[in-house]
Amino acid sequence: MSFVFHRRVTWGDVDAAGIAYTGRFPQFCMEALEAWFLEVLDADWYELNVRRGIGTPFVHMDLDFRSPLTPRDALAITVRLERLGGSSLRFLVQGHANGDRLSFEGHFACAFVDGKSMKPIPVPAEFRAALESRAEPGV
Amino acid sequence: MSFVFHRRVTWGDVDAAGIAYTGRFPQFCMEALEAWFLEVLDADWYELNVRRGIGTPFVHMDLDFRSPLTPRDALAITVRLERLGGSSLRFLVQGHANGDRLSFEGHFACAFVDGKSMKPIPVPAEFRAALESRAEPGV
Amino acid sequence: MSFVFHRRVTWGDVDAAGIAYTGRFPQFCMEALEAWFLEVLDADWYELNVRRGIGTPFVHMDLDFRSPLTPRDALAITVRLERLGGSSLRFLVQGHANGDRLSFEGHFACAFVDGKSMKPIPVPAEFRAALESRAEPGV
Amino acid sequence: MSFVFHRRVTWGDVDAAGIAYTGRFPQFCMEALEAWFLEVLDADWYELNVRRGIGTPFVHMDLDFRSPLTPRDALAITVRLERLGGSSLRFLVQGHANGDRLSFEGHFACAFVDGKSMKPIPVPAEFRAALESRAEPGV
Repeated sequence: MSFVFHRRVTWGDVDAAGIAYTGRFPQFCMEALEAWFLEVLDADWYELNVRRGIGTPFVHMDLDFRSPLTPRDALAITVRLERLGGSSLRFLVQGHANGDRLSFEGHFACAFVDGKSMKPIPVPAEFRAALESRAEPGV
Repeated sequence: MSFVFHRRVTWGDVDAAGIAYTGRFPQFCMEALEAWFLEVLDADWYELNVRRGIGTPFVHMDLDFRSPLTPRDALAITVRLERLGGSSLRFLVQGHANGDRLSFEGHFACAFVDGKSMKPIPVPAEFRAALESRAEPGV
Repeated sequence: MSFVFHRRVTWGDVDAAGIAYTGRFPQFCMEALEAWFLEVLDADWYELNVRRGIGTPFVHMDLDFRSPLTPRDALAITVRLERLGGSSLRFLVQGHANGDRLSFEGHFACAFVDGKSMKPIPVPAEFRAALESRAEPGV
Repeated sequence: MSFVFHRRVTWGDVDAAGIAYTGRFPQFCMEALEAWFLEVLDADWYELNVRRGIGTPFVHMDLDFRSPLTPRDALAITVRLERLGGSSLRFLVQGHANGDRLSFEGHFACAFVDGKSMKPIPVPAEFRAALESRAEPGV
């Protein structure tokens, strides 16, 4: 049930200490999460927002940094749907370098909202089956 | 003992939902934290790294998003040194819009390391007094 | 008639060569240009787009890089309205470090458009006087 | 002799007008250019700088924006080595949406420098054959 997003770490991601800059990691995760939406719901955030009027604002993120990244590392970000709530999604995100070295891990949570009022809405019916098929068991 | 960093939310910070993009908030906080270092230690991260050989990599960040931001909001980010450890610093960061509406809050933690070996080092003696004067009491 | 925007170069702007990353300079200029709009038209791009339905998409940018920037440099970006057309604006942008060393210079051009159709519109009447007062003479 | 770089336009690239933000296009191009280096020289900028002590700072960029981009567009960026000088490279970069609609085009130029002194150096001998095989004829 896991989804893996591969991304190159580029020159522009690195700071003067020669490692990926702290402020870039959340962006790496957001790219992985958007790719997860596209894979699982067949809709990216633009499609959801602009065409269907559904927002998915994030309400939480946390990240623990375990080891640095450089452009020499092949970065693979694993995304798991850890909890499927009534209107919210909570993800476990883990970044590995070169297959096995853990670089970072953490959680991101978002809620489905009406794009105009920004009020929470239930998980849209059209997405529930796909989301349930991806949710981690027993959590 | 708090430090307040003011920052305009710009057009480039906003997404197609018309609010500041999730991936930008950690960057807002990093800018506030770097300004805190410059204020309290009289040295920004470039000075510490490149001239003095001291790194301060972040080991943790968490953020809870309480209300959205737009370029109409005057953003003020408060930084507090919540915990001063033997080689680490833990910060409470809170972003308020227009003086009183809480937009986000969370924590960032970093450790002093030797810039070459990337191994933790004690808080440099030259910074301890300034850091102690900023640390929250009883925590 | 010139406008000067001051901006700190931060740790996140710098790459592993220890100087500001090429990809960041256009962003520095966009921040300076947006500040110019706010100063001259009393409206930033969000206000123009979201509240008034007026877009100002950029149609051109060019930059020549003259000397590198680091966080030690106090960056001042000068913005001049080089040409005021029927529906377009062309700017000269110059970045100086520490008062006198030229770091970069170039041009940015944008056009007023209807926010819905994205078709060019004449410079809005409400802005013409302010823009004319800022336009460089004889150009 | 052309090289094509494919890139998703993401939610984080888009502004409140619902199209990719001007300030992001140079970054798209830098990613394409770095991928070109990796393809043609078998070395990205990090490898060149950190391991081999060779810098490639950019001295010029220009971009003309022909049509907007959204996340619905499949972006393909074509990179061509338009001119190979004694120590410099000049690229033509063109971004097409969905195969045939031109979105942007422009030029980027960089120079080989010694990573320490930042002074120009001749095109490294080890790269000359690969670069010549990619240079556009007669220009």
